[in-house]
Amino acid sequence: MAGFSERWLIEEVLAPLAAHAPGAFGLADDAAVLHSEAGTEFVVTLDTLIEGVHFRPSDPARFIAKKALRVNVSDLAGKGAEAFAYFLSLGIPRQRQESWIRDFAAGLAEDQQRYGVDLHGGDTVYSPDRLAISVTMIGRAPAGRSVRRSGARPGDLVYVSGTIGDGALGLLAGEDNVPGVLDETEVMFLARRYLLPEPRSRLAGALRTHARAAMDISDGLVSDLGLLCAAGAVSAEVELEHVPLSGPARRALEAEPGLLGTIMAGGDDYELLAVVEPMQARLFERDASDAGAPVSRIGRIVAGREPPRFVDAQGQVHDLASATFRHF
Amino acid sequence: MAGFSERWLIEEVLAPLAAHAPGAFGLADDAAVLHSEAGTEFVVTLDTLIEGVHFRPSDPARFIAKKALRVNVSDLAGKGAEAFAYFLSLGIPRQRQESWIRDFAAGLAEDQQRYGVDLHGGDTVYSPDRLAISVTMIGRAPAGRSVRRSGARPGDLVYVSGTIGDGALGLLAGEDNVPGVLDETEVMFLARRYLLPEPRSRLAGALRTHARAAMDISDGLVSDLGLLCAAGAVSAEVELEHVPLSGPARRALEAEPGLLGTIMAGGDDYELLAVVEPMQARLFERDASDAGAPVSRIGRIVAGREPPRFVDAQGQVHDLASATFRHF
Repeated sequence: MAGFSERWLIEEVLAPLAAHAPGAFGLADDAAVLHSEAGTEFVVTLDTLIEGVHFRPSDPARFIAKKALRVNVSDLAGKGAEAFAYFLSLGIPRQRQESWIRDFAAGLAEDQQRYGVDLHGGDTVYSPDRLAISVTMIGRAPAGRSVRRSGARPGDLVYVSGTIGDGALGLLAGEDNVPGVLDETEVMFLARRYLLPEPRSRLAGALRTHARAAMDISDGLVSDLGLLCAAGAVSAEVELEHVPLSGPARRALEAEPGLLGTIMAGGDDYELLAVVEPMQARLFERDASDAGAPVSRIGRIVAGREPPRFVDAQGQVHDLASATFRHF
Repeated sequence: MAGFSERWLIEEVLAPLAAHAPGAFGLADDAAVLHSEAGTEFVVTLDTLIEGVHFRPSDPARFIAKKALRVNVSDLAGKGAEAFAYFLSLGIPRQRQESWIRDFAAGLAEDQQRYGVDLHGGDTVYSPDRLAISVTMIGRAPAGRSVRRSGARPGDLVYVSGTIGDGALGLLAGEDNVPGVLDETEVMFLARRYLLPEPRSRLAGALRTHARAAMDISDGLVSDLGLLCAAGAVSAEVELEHVPLSGPARRALEAEPGLLGTIMAGGDDYELLAVVEPMQARLFERDASDAGAPVSRIGRIVAGREPPRFVDAQGQVHDLASATFRHF
């Protein structure tokens, strides 16, 4: 390792991130211990980010660290679980500098505070060509209360949090590829939404209480709603004019209607998708609002096995499936 | 992806590996659920293997898969925990063939059976240059009974399972770099010990019952005993002639005494290291034997903070620390 030793990395940089986790033993043991709690279930997710595939080599270390945590926080929030522990696998090329590592750890530290998670363990290895980051994150929910992808029934209402499409437009913005009508502030807003998702962890409780099915939106609304419908053996109808867009996304779409596919299917939203039975709708909306993460009703679940239909205000169905993007 | 789709990979290849894990939801949800059990604690470990660093590109897919699981099974066994669930992060280059993936999955399936673990989730991503495999494995132990690295006290006895140094010699054997006195069967024995560790999972119970401190030996006896001593603020004295060697390792060492460092410090043993108070020694040895994983007493814990001393039958101390090897 050019710039630093493994010992420095573990003892000086990573161990402080585990200081508040008794079961992590200061990262000076071979495994962590998680104490079971009666009436609780653990919810576990894992996301891997590869340099040049899931983030750009030029992205700031601090943002990469935060993104690695946040995509997992988002997954757990979509299951109605509260994240509390994570394990970090870090494959690092030799040419990384100590300062890069310090920035990366600072990003982790900030988000540990923000989302109430602590580093519990992991592995640091040499990765010759590029950074490879894998986070396994563990959340808690009352036993039997975390929320599945399956469970949606015809007649249920479909909700999303926040606004859709900003992340996908932000990726284009990074490539200087958004409509010229957007001003600098708008472009920066979108770019930041891509760089740094803001998972709706505050919605976890409302999902547990009210949602029949839920998940986070990471591969695009079209694709993820498709997965949710497939898991429940149902279909859905989405009213495109009710899909919430940010100001910049709306302006971009007005200037360039062809961006509809990017917005609805491009991915990197890290918003939540929830299906709620009509009786629960008002309470769900209120609880979401109270939690500081308002939701928008965008359509309803219908019988059938076809992919969800996306219908505009004129009743025209848009084929957005071709715009879906798979990392792999 | 040249050879296959992500959907094929998940639905056809990986989902069957999760078929017996109810909390994995057939890999058709975003997270897995682990039910807490009263009186149980979860023990979690993570190990990452990078192609060209931790295994050779030419190693058979089936062996790579098994190694990825076994290094984690070994970690958990060293903590006195029984592995039951794992999460797989798989970064795959485009040029991998469907047949490679099938072999890899077959290796996972065989070892799931062998060690009683089930795939519970994970992430599959595109990794441009090389395979990157990360396994997070979860074990169970009665609450408060898993075993720490720390806890050794002066006067305690030091034990290892199996034989030491075969893995390190096996790596040399793969490079055609072992003494010529070894016959083909002996060379193959060593090569296989490197390729495919055999974690002593059957010792977990005996460790829980009798060990004051324990861990698995992956970075070499010298280095790992050093870590165990450091964690307990103690030192140790090892009698080199009591360190158990396989027949091939013994013959190699006789032919080339300079291999002592490789054997004691080379790593890739995946044996267990345990510290037991003298009163428990006889019971520990018996329980280990009954479990089918006999142990050898190699020395004792002594007061002090120096690195462990390795002493031969003539009373000469060998400096083996310089032979320790770090992957990073």
